Amino acid sequence: MPLIAHSQSMPFEAPLPLQSGTAIRDYALSYETYGTLNDDRSNAVLICHALNASHHVAGVYEGQPRSEGWWDNMIGPGKPVDTDRFFVIGVNNLGSCFGSTGPMHVNPDTGRVYGADFPVVTVEDWVDAQARLLDALGIRQLAAVMGGSLGGMQALCWSLRYPERVRHAVVVASAPNLNAENIAFNEVARRAIVTDPDFHGGHFYAQGVVPKRGLRIARMIGHITYLSDDVMNEKFGRQLREGIALKGAPGGSEHTPAPSVGAYRYSTQDIEFQIESYLRYQGDKFSEYFDANTYLLITRALDYFDPARAHGGSLQKALAQTQARFLLVSFTTDWRFAPARSREIVQALLDNKRAVSYAEIDAPHGHDAFLLDDARYLNVVRAYFERIAAEGAAA
Amino acid sequence: MPLIAHSQSMPFEAPLPLQSGTAIRDYALSYETYGTLNDDRSNAVLICHALNASHHVAGVYEGQPRSEGWWDNMIGPGKPVDTDRFFVIGVNNLGSCFGSTGPMHVNPDTGRVYGADFPVVTVEDWVDAQARLLDALGIRQLAAVMGGSLGGMQALCWSLRYPERVRHAVVVASAPNLNAENIAFNEVARRAIVTDPDFHGGHFYAQGVVPKRGLRIARMIGHITYLSDDVMNEKFGRQLREGIALKGAPGGSEHTPAPSVGAYRYSTQDIEFQIESYLRYQGDKFSEYFDANTYLLITRALDYFDPARAHGGSLQKALAQTQARFLLVSFTTDWRFAPARSREIVQALLDNKRAVSYAEIDAPHGHDAFLLDDARYLNVVRAYFERIAAEGAAA
Repeated sequence: MPLIAHSQSMPFEAPLPLQSGTAIRDYALSYETYGTLNDDRSNAVLICHALNASHHVAGVYEGQPRSEGWWDNMIGPGKPVDTDRFFVIGVNNLGSCFGSTGPMHVNPDTGRVYGADFPVVTVEDWVDAQARLLDALGIRQLAAVMGGSLGGMQALCWSLRYPERVRHAVVVASAPNLNAENIAFNEVARRAIVTDPDFHGGHFYAQGVVPKRGLRIARMIGHITYLSDDVMNEKFGRQLREGIALKGAPGGSEHTPAPSVGAYRYSTQDIEFQIESYLRYQGDKFSEYFDANTYLLITRALDYFDPARAHGGSLQKALAQTQARFLLVSFTTDWRFAPARSREIVQALLDNKRAVSYAEIDAPHGHDAFLLDDARYLNVVRAYFERIAAEGAAA
Repeated sequence: MPLIAHSQSMPFEAPLPLQSGTAIRDYALSYETYGTLNDDRSNAVLICHALNASHHVAGVYEGQPRSEGWWDNMIGPGKPVDTDRFFVIGVNNLGSCFGSTGPMHVNPDTGRVYGADFPVVTVEDWVDAQARLLDALGIRQLAAVMGGSLGGMQALCWSLRYPERVRHAVVVASAPNLNAENIAFNEVARRAIVTDPDFHGGHFYAQGVVPKRGLRIARMIGHITYLSDDVMNEKFGRQLREGIALKGAPGGSEHTPAPSVGAYRYSTQDIEFQIESYLRYQGDKFSEYFDANTYLLITRALDYFDPARAHGGSLQKALAQTQARFLLVSFTTDWRFAPARSREIVQALLDNKRAVSYAEIDAPHGHDAFLLDDARYLNVVRAYFERIAAEGAAA
């Protein structure tokens, strides 16, 4: 019997002050909860999402057996983050296109759709909005806040912004800030979207068009950076598109490409290699559902996150505010958020004599690994949450 | 007194058969020569270019002191490839937009500009065309053929296709083929160009427009892959655009970014970080002069090059045809054509008992290093060419 998820929405009238100096009012946050909040309200775990995800973290919707949440392998009954023990909250961030108030919604100040006028939001703003949601749910302190990638930045930010409300922070495949190369990839993706003639300065909804060309390019770039060189070579290598037809055919295999067969077509625009087919497919799919303004907002929030900035560039000084205990996890082939970036956080925490567990998982899958089934990774998280549960029971 | 370069053009009437099965006729190759061909015509060195370069390899044009050739630090009187000793030939490849017959020229079969109908050309085709140029210049055998990146692929291809015509092959920052990630980056760049509404299926000349949006994105992606993570962090880091204004100002420095100053603007579309400014500038500049059809052709030639393909994937078998001696050079931080790819070539040559020198230069600059002044790199090449010159004198 699978976990059944129910999407909910919490409205907020009072203005939320934003890092940019403006504020947003009359907004709503979409969220889901799994498991049961215990009597002393001490078993809540908040899950923060990354670029292309939402509050639908675990389980499936009634009657939709293929609607698994994006971290369903991690969270659920008997899973590493066990919803039989923890009350898990998934929340969709402001500016998203998956339920919470975002660019496609109406700006109460103008009566028109926000579009490009949606305020620029930061990781700090998201965490503040999440804190108000917890207030509304009557949760004073989290057993843990957890996220991967951009979600890991939110978990780290929670430990800085609301130190007394976080007992544990679980920061997976993340970084204390983006480096120049990360920002560069974000910028190219944004330029592809913004310079698409169908973007119309971010007010494309009124034109009845979508800047799909730009979204496709953005997603293709993203996919290249999510995968490791190794896994790309293993999955696609230099296989020609004929290899695709072999899938499922006798002698073909889903995972082991057949040796390169067939002749080159000698075309600059047709698909020649399987990797091209894969990227075009991913780009097309993404452009069908993701909002262009949301893409700009979320990548900018990534760019801006930099807790050391207010402390003269010292991460150690920034993390002196934390009170939580930490689990950090990184993956050896992740070149988007390399293990070295996680180690910077670990070192800065150790310099502050904080309790830190750190696992560097030797996985081939690159940044994507944080969403995949790797037994060592899942076991590290499971063991950590078992310890949290034991603490709760002992307290 | 600087070396003065003279651009020349060699016309060819006879059809050149192409790997695609078609042919090209009535074409011309632009080329330059430096130094003097010796009496026994044994001191010729051919230089092959990469994506964004031409036959203008060394020296300057009369009265244009800032028109240095793209490898002017490597080639010239007294330089590592010494034009006082060697007769050096720079040649522009078919399909280029810098002089040789390309998509902007008229197709003799139709009387119309080629545009997207320019035949798909391969590294093999380029080498065949270069061989005809050498025939026309009366050069039977090269003392050396040399190139970096895609140029290195041409040097390697020469040693396979015309083994008896190459005494030495110098292959810098190259690879025996592109891997999936390389192809992926090329494909994203091509899609950005092809889906630009101003591309018009490659026949944009007649429309009086240029697909600049696509070219900008392509170049931005290229620049990210040419630079190492390290050099990006050193040159740009997370510096805000204010840092740009500091350049040249008292206390400012061209190379060491000042600490991050100023406030975030909180904008998704304005330039916020210096790396964004750099990439946009590079993209704008490139889109002013580079031809979109040429970009497609050259990246496709890169994708297709794979000498092991005709030998069941065995590079060792492919390189059994070679007779030349080799110098290979790679750069530690080059993630586009990583040292491991050069080592594949070295190993396959050693397995064939060929004479190979190999230098792996510990340079911070990524793929770009092959064009830069690194004393160790330049000295390796200098020493190698001094040996070639000594052989010639002894012969």
